[in-house]
Amino acid sequence: MFDVNTYFDKKVVSISHNGAEGKATIGVMKAGEYEFGTSTVEIMTVISGEMQIMFPGESEWKTYQKFDSFRVEKDSKFKVKVEQDTPYLCIYK
Amino acid sequence: MFDVNTYFDKKVVSISHNGAEGKATIGVMKAGEYEFGTSTVEIMTVISGEMQIMFPGESEWKTYQKFDSFRVEKDSKFKVKVEQDTPYLCIYK
Repeated sequence: MFDVNTYFDKKVVSISHNGAEGKATIGVMKAGEYEFGTSTVEIMTVISGEMQIMFPGESEWKTYQKFDSFRVEKDSKFKVKVEQDTPYLCIYK
Repeated sequence: MFDVNTYFDKKVVSISHNGAEGKATIGVMKAGEYEFGTSTVEIMTVISGEMQIMFPGESEWKTYQKFDSFRVEKDSKFKVKVEQDTPYLCIYK
């Protein structure tokens, strides 16, 4: 059985699993802007559409498209902005 | 808010959404073999690991890897076999 977690008033939903790439979640975000905190290194991949990301200590958004990945360091905060339902994969290192 | 559905004794969990590629689900399957029925054309993509697929009317498994996609026709049944937790994207046409 999988753990399903919700965040930000259920605007983000994720399913925890442990597959070929180790501990991971897949989830979907509704249109909006979110700030996430990390407790491990996270490798995040856009599964459909695009995400705008503001990395820790930066002041400009970077855009990632379908199947693009980006890395966020441990114990940091980053912002995600999406314009529609956007599925993602997150791998914890 | 997203609809979360479970199938096969909760060994398959999926999240419905409507994003850049239209009506879709992302989900995860636990190790096992499953038979799914379609009510639309479905474009399925492996998100991590691999899936073995037996298409309608065929008798051999075909293997699809991370980010590979395959199409299943409307009103048909197909089998999926996975050896570990395997996340996928399914787009309904």
